[in-house]
Amino acid sequence: MRARDHGFVVGQLPPGAANSITDVAGVRVGHANALPDHTGVTAVWPHAGDPFSQPYFCGTAALNGAGELTGAWEIEEWGARTTPVFLTGTSYVGAVYNGATHVLTARQPTMARDEVMIPVVGECDPSSWCDLRDGPEPGDEMVARALDDARGGATTEGQVGAGVGMETFGYAAGIGTSSRVVGEHVVGVLVLSNFGLTERFVLCGRPVGQSLANETASSGEGSCICLVATDAPLLPHQLKRLARRPFIGLARTGSYGSHGSGEIAFAWTTANLLQREAPAETALRMLDDELLSALFAACAEAAEEAVLNALCAGRDLRGYSGQVLPRFPAERFALPTGA
Amino acid sequence: MRARDHGFVVGQLPPGAANSITDVAGVRVGHANALPDHTGVTAVWPHAGDPFSQPYFCGTAALNGAGELTGAWEIEEWGARTTPVFLTGTSYVGAVYNGATHVLTARQPTMARDEVMIPVVGECDPSSWCDLRDGPEPGDEMVARALDDARGGATTEGQVGAGVGMETFGYAAGIGTSSRVVGEHVVGVLVLSNFGLTERFVLCGRPVGQSLANETASSGEGSCICLVATDAPLLPHQLKRLARRPFIGLARTGSYGSHGSGEIAFAWTTANLLQREAPAETALRMLDDELLSALFAACAEAAEEAVLNALCAGRDLRGYSGQVLPRFPAERFALPTGA
Amino acid sequence: MRARDHGFVVGQLPPGAANSITDVAGVRVGHANALPDHTGVTAVWPHAGDPFSQPYFCGTAALNGAGELTGAWEIEEWGARTTPVFLTGTSYVGAVYNGATHVLTARQPTMARDEVMIPVVGECDPSSWCDLRDGPEPGDEMVARALDDARGGATTEGQVGAGVGMETFGYAAGIGTSSRVVGEHVVGVLVLSNFGLTERFVLCGRPVGQSLANETASSGEGSCICLVATDAPLLPHQLKRLARRPFIGLARTGSYGSHGSGEIAFAWTTANLLQREAPAETALRMLDDELLSALFAACAEAAEEAVLNALCAGRDLRGYSGQVLPRFPAERFALPTGA
Amino acid sequence: MRARDHGFVVGQLPPGAANSITDVAGVRVGHANALPDHTGVTAVWPHAGDPFSQPYFCGTAALNGAGELTGAWEIEEWGARTTPVFLTGTSYVGAVYNGATHVLTARQPTMARDEVMIPVVGECDPSSWCDLRDGPEPGDEMVARALDDARGGATTEGQVGAGVGMETFGYAAGIGTSSRVVGEHVVGVLVLSNFGLTERFVLCGRPVGQSLANETASSGEGSCICLVATDAPLLPHQLKRLARRPFIGLARTGSYGSHGSGEIAFAWTTANLLQREAPAETALRMLDDELLSALFAACAEAAEEAVLNALCAGRDLRGYSGQVLPRFPAERFALPTGA
Repeated sequence: MRARDHGFVVGQLPPGAANSITDVAGVRVGHANALPDHTGVTAVWPHAGDPFSQPYFCGTAALNGAGELTGAWEIEEWGARTTPVFLTGTSYVGAVYNGATHVLTARQPTMARDEVMIPVVGECDPSSWCDLRDGPEPGDEMVARALDDARGGATTEGQVGAGVGMETFGYAAGIGTSSRVVGEHVVGVLVLSNFGLTERFVLCGRPVGQSLANETASSGEGSCICLVATDAPLLPHQLKRLARRPFIGLARTGSYGSHGSGEIAFAWTTANLLQREAPAETALRMLDDELLSALFAACAEAAEEAVLNALCAGRDLRGYSGQVLPRFPAERFALPTGA
Repeated sequence: MRARDHGFVVGQLPPGAANSITDVAGVRVGHANALPDHTGVTAVWPHAGDPFSQPYFCGTAALNGAGELTGAWEIEEWGARTTPVFLTGTSYVGAVYNGATHVLTARQPTMARDEVMIPVVGECDPSSWCDLRDGPEPGDEMVARALDDARGGATTEGQVGAGVGMETFGYAAGIGTSSRVVGEHVVGVLVLSNFGLTERFVLCGRPVGQSLANETASSGEGSCICLVATDAPLLPHQLKRLARRPFIGLARTGSYGSHGSGEIAFAWTTANLLQREAPAETALRMLDDELLSALFAACAEAAEEAVLNALCAGRDLRGYSGQVLPRFPAERFALPTGA
Repeated sequence: MRARDHGFVVGQLPPGAANSITDVAGVRVGHANALPDHTGVTAVWPHAGDPFSQPYFCGTAALNGAGELTGAWEIEEWGARTTPVFLTGTSYVGAVYNGATHVLTARQPTMARDEVMIPVVGECDPSSWCDLRDGPEPGDEMVARALDDARGGATTEGQVGAGVGMETFGYAAGIGTSSRVVGEHVVGVLVLSNFGLTERFVLCGRPVGQSLANETASSGEGSCICLVATDAPLLPHQLKRLARRPFIGLARTGSYGSHGSGEIAFAWTTANLLQREAPAETALRMLDDELLSALFAACAEAAEEAVLNALCAGRDLRGYSGQVLPRFPAERFALPTGA
Repeated sequence: MRARDHGFVVGQLPPGAANSITDVAGVRVGHANALPDHTGVTAVWPHAGDPFSQPYFCGTAALNGAGELTGAWEIEEWGARTTPVFLTGTSYVGAVYNGATHVLTARQPTMARDEVMIPVVGECDPSSWCDLRDGPEPGDEMVARALDDARGGATTEGQVGAGVGMETFGYAAGIGTSSRVVGEHVVGVLVLSNFGLTERFVLCGRPVGQSLANETASSGEGSCICLVATDAPLLPHQLKRLARRPFIGLARTGSYGSHGSGEIAFAWTTANLLQREAPAETALRMLDDELLSALFAACAEAAEEAVLNALCAGRDLRGYSGQVLPRFPAERFALPTGA
């Protein structure tokens, strides 16, 4: 069950068919885990083609940059990327970065010869629940598996892939996604949700966290990586702007960007794809800035709902030390659904 | 009446004595207008001393940089400022900047000789309601009046000073302020509130805007300048972080950072003051980063309440073309107060 | 006489016809002064049309942001501007900003009604030589005069317009310009040059400053605003990159970006002009990133030569206190010219 | 032999005892390679203590962010780091990041339990000369070896550690370092030098590259990572400023920041160390901003000389395809030395 199944309806704009980042045509999400209760890898293909042959425009932003999203220098400098996007646990950034290097190099004959590559790897810290010292480390095989597992349509959420061990407002969360349709365009958000002080949790405007703080405990630290995809023809500087809007959704759930919370966003468009062997000039389209406002509202709504979806998809997680991170008891707050 | 008088209680932390940015000791706010219904000037003294002799640490941030806050380059480079802060209408930035230059130069014998000065002037656009082509332009006299009018304690809010002509979610708003106490420190926020699409207005978690959208009309554009003061001993890079937190409060009232909305913040501390003739090394204190989280939550709460205070303090404004910008009918949404 | 007339040839790329920023078709430069020895205003039209009707893409950068260039927030946010560019002395930023507001509002019926405007005004500090407390302040008339004086072709350099009172490496400098041709494109740079410690001056690779330090004295502080224009079809993020390259030229003359030196650049393209009433999508062209390298080298060369041109065009300036800022004795360092 | 041994004296300030980044007390540099002609790892200990227990203030900058330096988000957000700094070849960033995670986690019992860590790993691309597809990849052992090899005093330069396979202006370069003494403080720079178009090479002001372009060939792409250490008591925002100054030195050798060249700097101070378990307030010292100018000049000089030292320390490198990257024939350009 997802947030809407409990009557948790966020905002005013309609979601796409799958209510997922995959509603942006070509975007695909895959997961891989070594063990069900241990952090793994989530991989996102940014468009229908090969991002090495067809670099895509993108931009980043941080509400609180207390985390890692590799490739940030080139994203800022070039406004474009050439790899899929990877998510994992903090201590595995190097392993997944290296796995991505191995797998993508093997699949691309000119890589590390005429070209090098800097992948995008984001992280949250599941170390309260997963044993990052002694647990199984993701390697090439898991990176490849997540890439090959990737698909459109409905996205598996919660404690899966990079989402395992992730906690939000004191409950098991992890991967969540949602989308909004704005005219002929779609905005989709996928979060790796691992943040929030229980007493600050706001559910669709209701400050439910204060009562829940007696039932569960959260450190209040943690992070939330936000991936934002759209098919609107944006330029890199417009994507940087879009990348700031998931934080509006996070704020509405109760985030205040705590000191240790890496609330970092990466936004891209599937339109305006570039070519590796580019001509002297490439023809592009730019969405009128006035039309961005609706995309911004869509992004804020989708981010808020993505966090709720991550919470609603959680399951009890037995941590490596034996303690249990409980699932969010969504049914206790259920509202009448439209049906 | 202010937001709390209607039972609109934001967040979990207690406000300071005046529930104003002036709860940060030394901070003073003054207003000047040429006409009651025409945008004027608001001036804020950042600390109890002379900011020219005692520069103060500061930092900025933008949710959406569609506006102006002068001095931004030096704030980023030096992490410090030497002047009071001024707010006004968009077309008057030059006039107030020049007025500030005249007034502050006249009061400081070495200015424009051994030293120059770049003042901080922020703006929002009241041109839907105030005649910025033919109305009275603020000049030196009004800048001096706002500076000299500045005082601590209770702050006049709403349609006053720079706040005249400012609209929020379709209602008269303008200047609003609030504060929060965090242990031995205070965080205060003052907003120049001029943003928001009526149907997006959220009042303490309640999506009241959708019903109000039948009663009033808003363009949804506009801006919100946020001033944040604290007495916690922060460094410039910590103040940049604090400057990002008012946007969390704005988000909770319904902002999504629309394309044309200049949601820009300026944060400073009254601790760690510098000296103009500095020794080779200055002794400073730095608040432990872990303690920032509570300040961040405080800032988000104070910003949300400051917007509500701006709305609750509004009065019907007769625009220069005869149309009326209505006051927000707070009493219709009043909740039981603690009293 | 200009730098090349003394045999000071910078770099490897050929200059344009006028060896000026005006070699970028449509760019025009005008100056206005109240008195010959008092800082005035320089205005630059960024392209052949009306920038209000046809906004232009742009970007900024700072080696050392110790100065002011207004409009920076919107340049970063929108990647575009709608006004000419103005330069003046530090204490006159407000006056010129306000003059620009008046003049441009008067010429544009919808301004301050449906639209507001934030002009670009950059500054350097001439207060060692010009009396910024009591000298004549630029106002609307001088702003209009500079705008209307603007022309293509050869550009007046040195102690003219905003350049009066500006000192570089201990000599009278001010306005300087140069250009480079790169294939079918042109890069032009105009500097307001007011920086440099005499003993650090490097003239075409020769460390001449060390001997000159006995003859003249410089504070070493001061600033250099760099305007960069091109007709290459760049996007905003590419223009930000281009804006970092004038500092390479400044470095080669001896700048190290001293604490108080506002070394700030503003770059734009005359290609990819936008429309005020934009369609939902605008067709644009993007120069292949690989071709940027040549533009970057061109920009570095033109900036270095622009500084030398500012020095070579200087004249003895009698400061308001009676002291003389000497012209640079270029002839003592002259090299054989190609002729 | 180093640059000064050939009479290549850069600038006006005196170098420290070792003319190395290790002149900043506590800074130590170590190298590890699997094979002499294959890119390895260089590790830099930022101060005499354990950076995990004593985090250090730092800041970054880019002339051209076409590369990777991991940890950038937290450096910007927190102004501090907790790990040594690592350099390697582009395809090995993940491997070294992961090796650093393993080694540092093993040495620190609370790591990945109560704390996580994001190391700083910078890179340049040696793929023209080293086989990054099939050559030996650095792993935990080499990371540990580089860390344990680290020492103060004279630093091995050129084709060693991460420097193997690095080319500058068409010649073998790699690791180079230099320092400057400014009053009681020291500024040291270490570069991983892998940039530059031969015809643009400027040697102490002499444009020697144009003649050399017939003898060797360079792509002109590549990168240069610059590490800057000082013992001056700077704050994070001051270190960001310092981090921009190596680019001045690079510019003077002929860099123009070509599109593909990752010219990225990381600066830190050994003063103002923090404590992991920090008190509510930490006492710090801040160097007067006016004194920064001399540090900036020192940094520019040291960076220029570090590049020359990297060139002078190069040796002929036989690339994996059999081609030879020649050493720079410094002796042909030697100048009289002071001796």
